[in-house]
Amino acid sequence: MSGLDADDRALLERRRKVLGGAYRLFYDQPLHPQRGEGVWLYDRHDRAYLDAYNNVACLGHCHPHVVAAISRQAARLNTHTRYLDETILDCAERLLATLPPPLAQVIFTCTGSEANDLAYRIACQYTGAQGLIVTRMAYHGVTQALAQASPSLGAQVPLGTHVRTVELPDACDRDALTPAQRFAAQVQRAVNELAAAGIRPAALLLDSVFASDGIVTDPAGFIAPAVEVIHRAGGLFIADEVQAGLARLGEPFWGFVRHRVSPDIVTLGKPFGNGHPVAAVVARRECMEAFGQASRYFNTFGGNPVSCAAALAVLEVIEREGIPKRVEEVGEYLRRGLGQLAALHPEIGQVRGAGLFIAVAFASNAERSAAAIARAVVEGMRERGVLLSLTGAGGDVLKIRPPLVFERQHADILVERLDQTLAALRAGPPPMT
Amino acid sequence: MSGLDADDRALLERRRKVLGGAYRLFYDQPLHPQRGEGVWLYDRHDRAYLDAYNNVACLGHCHPHVVAAISRQAARLNTHTRYLDETILDCAERLLATLPPPLAQVIFTCTGSEANDLAYRIACQYTGAQGLIVTRMAYHGVTQALAQASPSLGAQVPLGTHVRTVELPDACDRDALTPAQRFAAQVQRAVNELAAAGIRPAALLLDSVFASDGIVTDPAGFIAPAVEVIHRAGGLFIADEVQAGLARLGEPFWGFVRHRVSPDIVTLGKPFGNGHPVAAVVARRECMEAFGQASRYFNTFGGNPVSCAAALAVLEVIEREGIPKRVEEVGEYLRRGLGQLAALHPEIGQVRGAGLFIAVAFASNAERSAAAIARAVVEGMRERGVLLSLTGAGGDVLKIRPPLVFERQHADILVERLDQTLAALRAGPPPMT
Repeated sequence: MSGLDADDRALLERRRKVLGGAYRLFYDQPLHPQRGEGVWLYDRHDRAYLDAYNNVACLGHCHPHVVAAISRQAARLNTHTRYLDETILDCAERLLATLPPPLAQVIFTCTGSEANDLAYRIACQYTGAQGLIVTRMAYHGVTQALAQASPSLGAQVPLGTHVRTVELPDACDRDALTPAQRFAAQVQRAVNELAAAGIRPAALLLDSVFASDGIVTDPAGFIAPAVEVIHRAGGLFIADEVQAGLARLGEPFWGFVRHRVSPDIVTLGKPFGNGHPVAAVVARRECMEAFGQASRYFNTFGGNPVSCAAALAVLEVIEREGIPKRVEEVGEYLRRGLGQLAALHPEIGQVRGAGLFIAVAFASNAERSAAAIARAVVEGMRERGVLLSLTGAGGDVLKIRPPLVFERQHADILVERLDQTLAALRAGPPPMT
Repeated sequence: MSGLDADDRALLERRRKVLGGAYRLFYDQPLHPQRGEGVWLYDRHDRAYLDAYNNVACLGHCHPHVVAAISRQAARLNTHTRYLDETILDCAERLLATLPPPLAQVIFTCTGSEANDLAYRIACQYTGAQGLIVTRMAYHGVTQALAQASPSLGAQVPLGTHVRTVELPDACDRDALTPAQRFAAQVQRAVNELAAAGIRPAALLLDSVFASDGIVTDPAGFIAPAVEVIHRAGGLFIADEVQAGLARLGEPFWGFVRHRVSPDIVTLGKPFGNGHPVAAVVARRECMEAFGQASRYFNTFGGNPVSCAAALAVLEVIEREGIPKRVEEVGEYLRRGLGQLAALHPEIGQVRGAGLFIAVAFASNAERSAAAIARAVVEGMRERGVLLSLTGAGGDVLKIRPPLVFERQHADILVERLDQTLAALRAGPPPMT
């Protein structure tokens, strides 16, 4: 980090001192943004960075409609849900209007972790069971219950004894089955393993875009038979839409819609407040009622008027600005551009994704492993002013997840800089070993 | 709820339809506030209600300094902790300056639930143990791990098999022991019970003001020997300061300081952002380092610049306006006024508390149980424009927990209306049975 100036080195030292060791920074040269606007972050020297990674600021950084909604409501009233208030109802109704009717009731939380944790509690209450099935590199949140069901946190965070993992179809042995059949067979195996341990399944919990498994979107519909398996076994299907939802994948609006399945519970978070901490659980009425009869749920900040004003503003802008259609178009344009790069650079193994959730999987070459190429690309792109990160079990997949207001001109910049970065990587000195 | 107007009845119907059954409202006639300012909430008819319950809006509703900080930062930059930023460091350092030095590192979360859940994860990681000891009516949060350790949620939310509860000294059999010795003996018994089940204790988790146990503040220092017991047993002491902390109890600033004990981990939440969702875990460096070596912790919204700007503004105002001393003075004044009422109204059994966290425990009379009196008082005070609620195992304790900017004139209003309410209760028709 020798390239850092004295001010940033001082910040690093302060971080080391007062923040826990669990805090990690991106990049060899950490970024120190000063302001954000649209798809851009600006550093102290007013250098612009194209944000192609931040799925939270879905409408772009500091979207004026959301900022105004937050400022207005914070100055007028911010209190809890034990009083009557219109804002939470306006927000809940607008959210439900984007979802198929069986999903009828909303509980607001502050984070996607709280939403997934609550979804699991609801599933346990409704089914009277405890077992939980997730994918092999799943990430669902940071609470204790979710960390136990998030194998991507690493072996030092052991899985719960009630948790079983399944492989995605592309990671299974090749056989005569379709990907959908292969995935269903995995879930059936997990159900059987739980049963052998005397555990009934409460839920199959799937990130609809499998972000931490490396972003696996196709073939659309491949999860449908697996949902039938969990239902037959008496468990619920929870669609974790914290990353996939809210038009990230384009016109389907929700990841599970693209897969043509019907979840019992849906969770959402990250983009819901364009940065403001707001998230939610939506469920079938009978699930919510079973939970509500057994327990009150009071989340001090959840559903407060300011958070709901932020989320409502986000839903308004998504509709008013025709975001789903734009995401569909620009996403396809970007994937096409990346696909063309693949013809020029053998380091690109595969381009996949949907809407503006896109993966570039790298392939090893004679000099570097796929993971080493991926790491070098992320650093090289940062040097060239484009912010990205990695995913996948091997850390060899470029995760492209820009604000939804990304335009063709921004896609052009990303493709052009990736072209330059890969070319420079090949032309540069071989890696030190 | 027949006194509700058509608009509010429509809101109730919308709530029933789209929010889960887990949502509950206060009061027979739910309140529908339109705006908040200082210690006041205003309804649609601009009727003012004295907020003597909301510990979240600690500086008063819509405090302009906090609103300005949120609005300014939300318009400039809101991103995550994987980039460098000053605001999180300014906030962490200012927070640490209020705490004794062994508490050296901060992780930001969005809610008190997330903070307590993380504190438990840190304790488990550091001790390699799982056992958790809480009080008999404890409430520590809504995540699955915390609901399992929050007996106040009721019998339908079963405690974890690794959880044991202890009685507070005033609920134990009278014996020759001091309250401190009695409480320590309870914790030792819980440690022994865990040991008998083959479980080592990870932590003793105490709300420093025992809010859901009925607000138990005295004698100051009574928890100290119990902390020694948990330490000898290899467990950590976690001070849950979500309700007691941040000058709520006056000049001690933190509830554990009043008890002259040294926690390994401290959690805070509710008042930290004056309504904005921000919370934190503070711990000894070695606890944080052990956790950070085993796991990263990334909370998407936790520690974002807007949340940290809100919390920093709260810390600034608390210091600048001399809040701890004011709380000390006004709290004592209010308790004195309530004590004088006790001489007039035999329904008042005991007035207790510290700073602006005050309990009025009711006593049954010939016509009504203590709980029935308590419920009638809450409704009667709401009719008279004062907002309060209840606590304690029997629901017979009035919970008084106003914004910290409460003044003598507001204390006078509260005492006067409570006097009227109790007088009207005695003069009114006997309760229907």
